[in-house]
Amino acid sequence: MTRAIAHPRTRYPWFVDIPTRFADNDQYAHMNNAVYFAFFDTAISLLLAREVGYDFGGDRFDAVVENQCTYLRSIRFPEVVTAGVGVGHVGRSSARFEVGLFVGDEPDARAQGWFMQVRCARASGRPVELEAEWRAAFERLRVIE
Amino acid sequence: MTRAIAHPRTRYPWFVDIPTRFADNDQYAHMNNAVYFAFFDTAISLLLAREVGYDFGGDRFDAVVENQCTYLRSIRFPEVVTAGVGVGHVGRSSARFEVGLFVGDEPDARAQGWFMQVRCARASGRPVELEAEWRAAFERLRVIE
Amino acid sequence: MTRAIAHPRTRYPWFVDIPTRFADNDQYAHMNNAVYFAFFDTAISLLLAREVGYDFGGDRFDAVVENQCTYLRSIRFPEVVTAGVGVGHVGRSSARFEVGLFVGDEPDARAQGWFMQVRCARASGRPVELEAEWRAAFERLRVIE
Amino acid sequence: MTRAIAHPRTRYPWFVDIPTRFADNDQYAHMNNAVYFAFFDTAISLLLAREVGYDFGGDRFDAVVENQCTYLRSIRFPEVVTAGVGVGHVGRSSARFEVGLFVGDEPDARAQGWFMQVRCARASGRPVELEAEWRAAFERLRVIE
Repeated sequence: MTRAIAHPRTRYPWFVDIPTRFADNDQYAHMNNAVYFAFFDTAISLLLAREVGYDFGGDRFDAVVENQCTYLRSIRFPEVVTAGVGVGHVGRSSARFEVGLFVGDEPDARAQGWFMQVRCARASGRPVELEAEWRAAFERLRVIE
Repeated sequence: MTRAIAHPRTRYPWFVDIPTRFADNDQYAHMNNAVYFAFFDTAISLLLAREVGYDFGGDRFDAVVENQCTYLRSIRFPEVVTAGVGVGHVGRSSARFEVGLFVGDEPDARAQGWFMQVRCARASGRPVELEAEWRAAFERLRVIE
Repeated sequence: MTRAIAHPRTRYPWFVDIPTRFADNDQYAHMNNAVYFAFFDTAISLLLAREVGYDFGGDRFDAVVENQCTYLRSIRFPEVVTAGVGVGHVGRSSARFEVGLFVGDEPDARAQGWFMQVRCARASGRPVELEAEWRAAFERLRVIE
Repeated sequence: MTRAIAHPRTRYPWFVDIPTRFADNDQYAHMNNAVYFAFFDTAISLLLAREVGYDFGGDRFDAVVENQCTYLRSIRFPEVVTAGVGVGHVGRSSARFEVGLFVGDEPDARAQGWFMQVRCARASGRPVELEAEWRAAFERLRVIE
């Protein structure tokens, strides 16, 4: 097993702060692995809400088809997390969102991962083409490698 | 059933911001009732950490013996909550913490509740007398009726 | 502060098993207080689904207006909880559901609490009268004092 | 983007039932993606507790270094999930656990993923060699390809 390399803060074009909650810590006294995904999910949702006006109750929605997380160093309540988000590959209906979780002014991510999401029609549940405005925003919000 | 009256922001001497997360909303598209307790728990824990240096891994801990919430008006992701906290009755080992959850600059709580907590020794799990410093802090942080 | 008395299993007419999950335990290595409410919520929802065919996506829904929990003795992963549910006071639009959480064959609840719920129309969000079938089921499912 | 192929039930040598909870559903009325990881985490923890006597409070613990989930078809409360678990690659200190989530008697997983875990000493936080008993159990519990 090779050890993963932490992504730097400079990889991400967009940031949002997410404070930890007491119940995020599990009995190992650090944040439970599932909670990292709730942080990723929230960060991506806020990027979509703020940058392309994503309406969570609208007639289209983003379905997560795959996601992943690499854990480099534990996060613990009461730390405040800064989530960095950037867009990787963009397809016809899909986009890959990368997220890194940072604490304080540390340059390296404590954890990093990605969500592959597909834009779908609510009525049919079938993929639809990404809107031009979304595509333009995703170009603007690319991960910086 | 008489309708509860919302507590005003002026009732609380201490505040902390807690943003909502995407997964806080349940299928009714508002924050699930259990999540309000995670907000209360986090707000009280942060008050104790910041005002009396509560060490979550120390040889004493606060056990919740009873808690309650009254729901006045729904909170929904992506709203940011401001939690107001104040101390009610203080006993030999116990204190009652009151919390109100506010959104934006609204004067009235969307939800309000309380936690009765008992200070315990970790080794025995038995109640211990509240430290003088805690007692003094609780006097300073009384709810304002 | 007087110590609460645990409710016996015989108080409840209806039961459902809910296993704990690893992430239910917080850093005190017992189930976090907010999770007890998720157990109550799930037990009441399953009672409504199974006994009166509650449709969670239908044009009426149950809004929680107040809830409460008394903690007698800790529950920890990997324990399996048996939730006992019974109906207390029933009003025109509202009902009070009582829940006790039991482990193994213990006669006394580890925790007990209640949810006051109001039946509402989804379109208006306003209270509606309880259906006759619900009222009949609630009579059948009364707490046994 | 190529569509993932669902793993069959026959891939997994070990199973445990995990019922859904009301709050598992997010506002899309299906289980939130982070909750799938709580299911995986619980299923792996129960396998370790039951098959090799994993003591969650002992002087060694399993750290998750990476995990992943592929979503094939939504799971919704009140469905009951059967989690299938099997062991993939085993290293000196690490093991890869695969999990598939099934509903009813369906032969194909609704979701599938894996956790890479490293056995660590609690005092140092450093990796330690897997115990012989664990290694033997992992051979017995291999995924069936």
